[in-house]
Amino acid sequence: MSGVLTRTYRFLPRVTRFYKSRSDINRTNIRPVVGTLFRSTANMANPGHRIEKDSFGELQVPDDKYYGANTARSLMNFKIGGPAEKMPIEVIHAFAILKKAAATVNMQFGLQEDIATAIQGAADEVINGALDSHFPLVIWQTGSGTQSNMNVNEVLANRAIEMLGGTLGSKTPVHPNDHVNKSQSSNDTYPTAMHIAVARSVHNVLIPGLRTLKNSIQNKATEFNDIVKIGRTHTQDATPLTLGQELSGYVQQLENSIARIENCLPRIYELAAGGTAVGTGLNTRIGFAEKVAEQVANITGLPFVTAPNKFEALAAHDALVEVSGALNTIACSLMKIANDIRFLASGPRCGLGELSLPENEPGSSIMPGKVNPTQCEALTMVCAQVMGNHVAVSVGGSNGHFELNVFKPMMVSNVLRSSRLIGDACVSFTENCVNGITANRERISSLLHESLMLVTALNPHIGYDAAAHIAKTAHKNGSTLKEEALQLGYLTEQQFNEWVRPEDMLGPK
Amino acid sequence: MSGVLTRTYRFLPRVTRFYKSRSDINRTNIRPVVGTLFRSTANMANPGHRIEKDSFGELQVPDDKYYGANTARSLMNFKIGGPAEKMPIEVIHAFAILKKAAATVNMQFGLQEDIATAIQGAADEVINGALDSHFPLVIWQTGSGTQSNMNVNEVLANRAIEMLGGTLGSKTPVHPNDHVNKSQSSNDTYPTAMHIAVARSVHNVLIPGLRTLKNSIQNKATEFNDIVKIGRTHTQDATPLTLGQELSGYVQQLENSIARIENCLPRIYELAAGGTAVGTGLNTRIGFAEKVAEQVANITGLPFVTAPNKFEALAAHDALVEVSGALNTIACSLMKIANDIRFLASGPRCGLGELSLPENEPGSSIMPGKVNPTQCEALTMVCAQVMGNHVAVSVGGSNGHFELNVFKPMMVSNVLRSSRLIGDACVSFTENCVNGITANRERISSLLHESLMLVTALNPHIGYDAAAHIAKTAHKNGSTLKEEALQLGYLTEQQFNEWVRPEDMLGPK
Amino acid sequence: MSGVLTRTYRFLPRVTRFYKSRSDINRTNIRPVVGTLFRSTANMANPGHRIEKDSFGELQVPDDKYYGANTARSLMNFKIGGPAEKMPIEVIHAFAILKKAAATVNMQFGLQEDIATAIQGAADEVINGALDSHFPLVIWQTGSGTQSNMNVNEVLANRAIEMLGGTLGSKTPVHPNDHVNKSQSSNDTYPTAMHIAVARSVHNVLIPGLRTLKNSIQNKATEFNDIVKIGRTHTQDATPLTLGQELSGYVQQLENSIARIENCLPRIYELAAGGTAVGTGLNTRIGFAEKVAEQVANITGLPFVTAPNKFEALAAHDALVEVSGALNTIACSLMKIANDIRFLASGPRCGLGELSLPENEPGSSIMPGKVNPTQCEALTMVCAQVMGNHVAVSVGGSNGHFELNVFKPMMVSNVLRSSRLIGDACVSFTENCVNGITANRERISSLLHESLMLVTALNPHIGYDAAAHIAKTAHKNGSTLKEEALQLGYLTEQQFNEWVRPEDMLGPK
Amino acid sequence: MSGVLTRTYRFLPRVTRFYKSRSDINRTNIRPVVGTLFRSTANMANPGHRIEKDSFGELQVPDDKYYGANTARSLMNFKIGGPAEKMPIEVIHAFAILKKAAATVNMQFGLQEDIATAIQGAADEVINGALDSHFPLVIWQTGSGTQSNMNVNEVLANRAIEMLGGTLGSKTPVHPNDHVNKSQSSNDTYPTAMHIAVARSVHNVLIPGLRTLKNSIQNKATEFNDIVKIGRTHTQDATPLTLGQELSGYVQQLENSIARIENCLPRIYELAAGGTAVGTGLNTRIGFAEKVAEQVANITGLPFVTAPNKFEALAAHDALVEVSGALNTIACSLMKIANDIRFLASGPRCGLGELSLPENEPGSSIMPGKVNPTQCEALTMVCAQVMGNHVAVSVGGSNGHFELNVFKPMMVSNVLRSSRLIGDACVSFTENCVNGITANRERISSLLHESLMLVTALNPHIGYDAAAHIAKTAHKNGSTLKEEALQLGYLTEQQFNEWVRPEDMLGPK
Repeated sequence: MSGVLTRTYRFLPRVTRFYKSRSDINRTNIRPVVGTLFRSTANMANPGHRIEKDSFGELQVPDDKYYGANTARSLMNFKIGGPAEKMPIEVIHAFAILKKAAATVNMQFGLQEDIATAIQGAADEVINGALDSHFPLVIWQTGSGTQSNMNVNEVLANRAIEMLGGTLGSKTPVHPNDHVNKSQSSNDTYPTAMHIAVARSVHNVLIPGLRTLKNSIQNKATEFNDIVKIGRTHTQDATPLTLGQELSGYVQQLENSIARIENCLPRIYELAAGGTAVGTGLNTRIGFAEKVAEQVANITGLPFVTAPNKFEALAAHDALVEVSGALNTIACSLMKIANDIRFLASGPRCGLGELSLPENEPGSSIMPGKVNPTQCEALTMVCAQVMGNHVAVSVGGSNGHFELNVFKPMMVSNVLRSSRLIGDACVSFTENCVNGITANRERISSLLHESLMLVTALNPHIGYDAAAHIAKTAHKNGSTLKEEALQLGYLTEQQFNEWVRPEDMLGPK
Repeated sequence: MSGVLTRTYRFLPRVTRFYKSRSDINRTNIRPVVGTLFRSTANMANPGHRIEKDSFGELQVPDDKYYGANTARSLMNFKIGGPAEKMPIEVIHAFAILKKAAATVNMQFGLQEDIATAIQGAADEVINGALDSHFPLVIWQTGSGTQSNMNVNEVLANRAIEMLGGTLGSKTPVHPNDHVNKSQSSNDTYPTAMHIAVARSVHNVLIPGLRTLKNSIQNKATEFNDIVKIGRTHTQDATPLTLGQELSGYVQQLENSIARIENCLPRIYELAAGGTAVGTGLNTRIGFAEKVAEQVANITGLPFVTAPNKFEALAAHDALVEVSGALNTIACSLMKIANDIRFLASGPRCGLGELSLPENEPGSSIMPGKVNPTQCEALTMVCAQVMGNHVAVSVGGSNGHFELNVFKPMMVSNVLRSSRLIGDACVSFTENCVNGITANRERISSLLHESLMLVTALNPHIGYDAAAHIAKTAHKNGSTLKEEALQLGYLTEQQFNEWVRPEDMLGPK
Repeated sequence: MSGVLTRTYRFLPRVTRFYKSRSDINRTNIRPVVGTLFRSTANMANPGHRIEKDSFGELQVPDDKYYGANTARSLMNFKIGGPAEKMPIEVIHAFAILKKAAATVNMQFGLQEDIATAIQGAADEVINGALDSHFPLVIWQTGSGTQSNMNVNEVLANRAIEMLGGTLGSKTPVHPNDHVNKSQSSNDTYPTAMHIAVARSVHNVLIPGLRTLKNSIQNKATEFNDIVKIGRTHTQDATPLTLGQELSGYVQQLENSIARIENCLPRIYELAAGGTAVGTGLNTRIGFAEKVAEQVANITGLPFVTAPNKFEALAAHDALVEVSGALNTIACSLMKIANDIRFLASGPRCGLGELSLPENEPGSSIMPGKVNPTQCEALTMVCAQVMGNHVAVSVGGSNGHFELNVFKPMMVSNVLRSSRLIGDACVSFTENCVNGITANRERISSLLHESLMLVTALNPHIGYDAAAHIAKTAHKNGSTLKEEALQLGYLTEQQFNEWVRPEDMLGPK
Repeated sequence: MSGVLTRTYRFLPRVTRFYKSRSDINRTNIRPVVGTLFRSTANMANPGHRIEKDSFGELQVPDDKYYGANTARSLMNFKIGGPAEKMPIEVIHAFAILKKAAATVNMQFGLQEDIATAIQGAADEVINGALDSHFPLVIWQTGSGTQSNMNVNEVLANRAIEMLGGTLGSKTPVHPNDHVNKSQSSNDTYPTAMHIAVARSVHNVLIPGLRTLKNSIQNKATEFNDIVKIGRTHTQDATPLTLGQELSGYVQQLENSIARIENCLPRIYELAAGGTAVGTGLNTRIGFAEKVAEQVANITGLPFVTAPNKFEALAAHDALVEVSGALNTIACSLMKIANDIRFLASGPRCGLGELSLPENEPGSSIMPGKVNPTQCEALTMVCAQVMGNHVAVSVGGSNGHFELNVFKPMMVSNVLRSSRLIGDACVSFTENCVNGITANRERISSLLHESLMLVTALNPHIGYDAAAHIAKTAHKNGSTLKEEALQLGYLTEQQFNEWVRPEDMLGPK
């Protein structure tokens, strides 16, 4: 979520002074921090700023931000797309989960306990969303996400320093690289954060949204189970089915959608952490990778494991392409469902008119009384977006080189966006459309009985060719099937009445 | 039709004797060749084969083929996709145009006249399609198309050798590299052939197809100009328009389609020839590039010029991506048009039913008498294919490296396929569907007068809110607008009759 | 919600006086405004809210927002994607340009002057960005953008009412539909706003970005014009060229990029305004369409005209698909350029190492001293995104139905995003990378003279086959060309020295 | 390859006598047919033709073809794309499997045994490829594939008629609709054939291809397990790994590829058969669907089952979109692998030069001795094609309407093409490239020891900042790490030698 501080200012102007003593943290449900520890560290800094330093030199950083020189430098070097293009906040939260896990494991391997604990505490604040405004970087930075990793390292280090009574920017007693990033590289942490973020989004947003929609359509299918209606193939009149049967196809699509996304998760649960720079695990300890995955699993409640091959986990993000492929398939399913519903509800008088959708808002700024299938439209637009996002992810996924794929932020931002949009749109579509669908039984019945395709029921009795003769004659004459069937002498009225019954055409015999 | 003979041989071995005297050539409309010149050159060759040689060594080649070792080697090394995946024959023909042009220019720069003339003669046979069966290579070879360039060089050299009384495979007196490929490289000739082939396909297939369809719809728009019908927005009933107006939108789309593709052509007319290996023009003569483009223009009647920058012309094929983008836009237009037509013709009794399409074939193997909008279906499938082809072209186009893009055969084969499919499908759609469309005037009129959206005509008289009140009441009560308008007291019957007239709602006032 | 108000204050501080009673301003750190004119209009409204009304009923709206019931209703019905998914502000600004133009023309056709003038004044504030915070709707709403049109109508109406001393929400003396939306429909205004927004973005962001990059590379091409280097085809060593020649290919690509996007603009300059609900122009006056386009041209300084066919202009957005296609082609060009640059700069010691890129930031959180081609990475990620956005636009563009395409907000948001990202990324890439590129002349020279492909210069003298013999022998033996040429007896040392000179291999002779 | 004979006929009319006795069938391993049964049935037919009839009337059909009027009509109505655009023969073979299964089950439900047996026999001939030339239809027909279903029905009926001594075209004793198509509709049979064809292609071509490549790379990984080399991230020098480790990442990608495609198969194994026209199963018997799936499973040896919901199975082809998504992911994996290999093998003298690829053919028509990574190029072109095919499949998959998706032939042809191309290209890449890769140990070692990134090993000893100081100084001075480390006084030579050992940097400690 971008622009947090801006927004804070807009909606809560009084808060600006809060930052003097870091009270933004007070406003969340984490433990208070003693404000006196906060001091500007640099005499040469502009008012309201302090000096931070990285291996490239010194930079001014706003006093009310925890981030350091790497972050400030990235803000200068990547002015691309503006605030709407922020690194997804889900990635930041996932990073903090990882950093917390790493601190825990590093402590087991010798990291000082007070440092580790402070990092964990700071990470919890990030996880809880309390420090969102300290992550200002955009997606369009280095393709390994190094700068966002350093942004997290810097914020956690400075916050931990503060907790421990140190001076912001001093890197003492907590160093962003040597402590927060210990046994880690951007190259393994960023993909780890990607997987954590995607798994959480799939679990928390996507699947719940799909389930909500599936259940609602299932309910409607049950409700409409007895309504016999004309089928349509090639958009043309076909043999009958029940409205419940028609909707059951959508239910199946949604069940499959959930299965499809769940099938991808085993590879999303594999974490790159422990691979460090190129996948070898240089500068980590034996067991680090496994223990970190275990900690992440503990924190998230999801079955993360260490990736079986870290070279693959850094250099390729096929797992994201795969998830994106599942999202693309789901988008195709939803496009079909939403299209059907708007066509079945087309009218009210000059369309198919079999369904009525809830009227949620005025449909037109010029046509009074017009009501439109706006939820279908929002959903189908989302589907098109997801199909496009998928191509972006695929192009990025195909372009890794040697030990690293450097399209990471682009890839994960598209997957997260697709997951969120589908999840949200499913809920909106359910609540504002599907739940309120009613069937226009009279219209449905009237259409059904006009149809010529009921003739199909005659195939087993008089053969395809004779049946075709009847149907084509009725079509030509604008007459009914029965009239022509009798007229052409293929069968008796009694036979017709017995054989051509829509309610008997709904299944095998 | 490429590769027919090869396959014939494989499945029908008895036929092989046909080729002993090059009768495949006799059967085309080119001048006969004295059979006695044809001799196997190698004692060690298998029966029916001769030995050909390239810089990698010797290979056996079927006696009845003009190609040489490079081609035979490619057949061994690239068993990918089978005969359906042949290098498009349009590329081969375009190559021959280029080789003819190059021979002409090389002669000006000193190539022996008899050699040049023989190459030109052989090239003419390829251009005319007489030697199609001698080009067996698939798309999936080297990404520069080197092997197809060599295939052309070998066929032309051997055919020219034969014309000049030499021995096939001897490279004397005509050498595939030193003479046929003189002043050329695959790296500049293949892109040149791509541009020639695409320009010819656009001119000969795509634009004529689009024009055919445009004219047909234009005729229908004129024919249906007086039919007032309900408009539909959001798939819902809206204010009226004429059927002619509705179709005029498609005509505009098709006019724009033609303009879009024509806009791309200036960059397609730019030829890489003269750039040789990396774009510098090494081993060519000053003026060669310009003269070759001029010769190609003469042969084709299209305004080809030499590319202003040969480095771009070899290393990037943005011009193909651009053309593919135009094809993609055209596909989107055609998808809309075909979708509309099938929905307007949906029914015959349970759909919109405003149009009737020609009945071309039985629509169903089970539903007697069913007729489907099959031409719409073929066309929309083509559109989806073109949209996919475009992504393949884009991925290839984005992946050039340094002095060369090596996705050339893949890129051009997709562009040519898209051009052909759209061109053909437009003609099929026109002849088998659009030309025979009839309007169901009664149905159209009946739907129009049921619509509630005629209420929009009241806005200027009683305001949006009052008009909405009338429409929503009529919708609720299943009544007519007039009934509710009078009932609610917003206006008199006379006013209603005067103000709400569909035929007055078709334009500004 | 992106920092809209912040921006307002930054760019237009004078505007604040307009906000006579707008308490949103009070809550920021700018000077207070006298509140007496501000009154809540509804007794039943919650504190800080007023009652607004649309044809569906009454809704509470925050006192400090100008929008009305349609907007508030959309906020309730479309909770999709959150604040990051806002309707692009460029669309809102474009809408205001249109509304101002329409007010001007409506005045000519009889709209009261004070009302028209107030609408124009309010529109100016929107155009200037002063009211950005009053447009909270997301992309994922109705596919015609009706709710954003109404959002604009409501804000302009209320602001105009306020200017004229009326009561917010009273729709008097300025009605959002009857006055602000006069002679308009969402169906023609939204596409008009799309075209205005895209044309402005192309002119203000995209083309300047492309020009900046083109000029910078052109300068480098000139600077490096004398550096002879090895060429690479198929990623393998090839014949030489100058570094300036290599870069000139990129310059050509960028020139073509600008031409490609400019070629699309004629169709973007065509405005749908005047088509109203279905393209007929119902409820407009003859001449309205032309005059509005003229006004928009005046305001923007761009050559907008009225669309020749309004049915096409509402029902199809092929012009956006076309522009997106141009953006996609540009993305492919930029991907090639950025990839080349990062590979040429690969190393510093174990890669090609021909170029050095500016060192902008620490490259690794684990590998000290590492510097990465981060600007190339940001740019190539942008390219992948644009390629994906293009598919989303194409899918949306192919899915219009009857008189309306309802993928409008999705389509335009992708085109605007692509335009912005490319424009911004080109500038960032130029300033932070290209401008600072240096050539490693020593390394380049050393590679050049090791190459075996200089042998190509011998073709005209000793033929392809002999030259191949030399090269393959040298490759096998790890020796130099000259050594093997002499050893194999093909030529004398003097001939070698005379014929094999890289500086003579840079062009035709 | 279908339709070979047709083309042969067109170009080589003398050959037609071959078919008088159906020798095309003789040449396959099926039982001969008595030639005397073959007679022209219609006096009015042109020479060499007979009259066939469908519900639209009579048509002339070549005497030597088994197909009937539906097929002939389709040939007239769909002249789109030419012979290269044939319905994939895999679909035809799959259809025959289904028809055989249906005949078996229909016999259980009362179909005369002799008819059923004749259909089974004819189906076997189609399955074995003996009748490929009787299926001339193109992909671009009706979107339900009805005409290909009828093509199969007609060929099987006529061949069965022939077997039973009847007259071709008489529909007696075997009727294409009433017997061959019994209990079936195109709407359920075509999707059934799609699933059968895709499952077989995945099993027979795709997975074997992937396994072949995986095993080969695994062998190379083992072979190169001891070669320590420089790692590269961001295309820049990074910390070391072994060549075996690098290749192990590709092995993992390929293992995942196989898992991904296998994960999709459960939904491909679900067959639509038994759903008939709209999914209800009208005109089938209870148990038909299950029994048919069982028969198909028997014939193919694959675990097909009847689809749990036939409405979904006809109206949506999400399962194909899903498979296509897996193919797309695999394409991304292969693109990465092939790109890496060509870059690692770039040179031979001016690139990275770590690997040598087999030299399979002359690389250039102008540069003597040039050898190119042509197998990498063929493979990456295939990958781009598959990525494009996927978009076509997705667009088609998203566009189903009501009870039927009518993009079936387009969808399945793309999936089959992708499967075939990847399978074949993997084998070609393995045999002609990977198997012959050698490592240039000397070059690899030389690059490794020049790298500055070995400095990373110092992090745990002297900290990130000091290590960065050393690396940056060495980079600036063109010196070695050791020189600068000692010069800057951070550590002793002994410490350097002990700590900076590439062979100790290959894993955690």
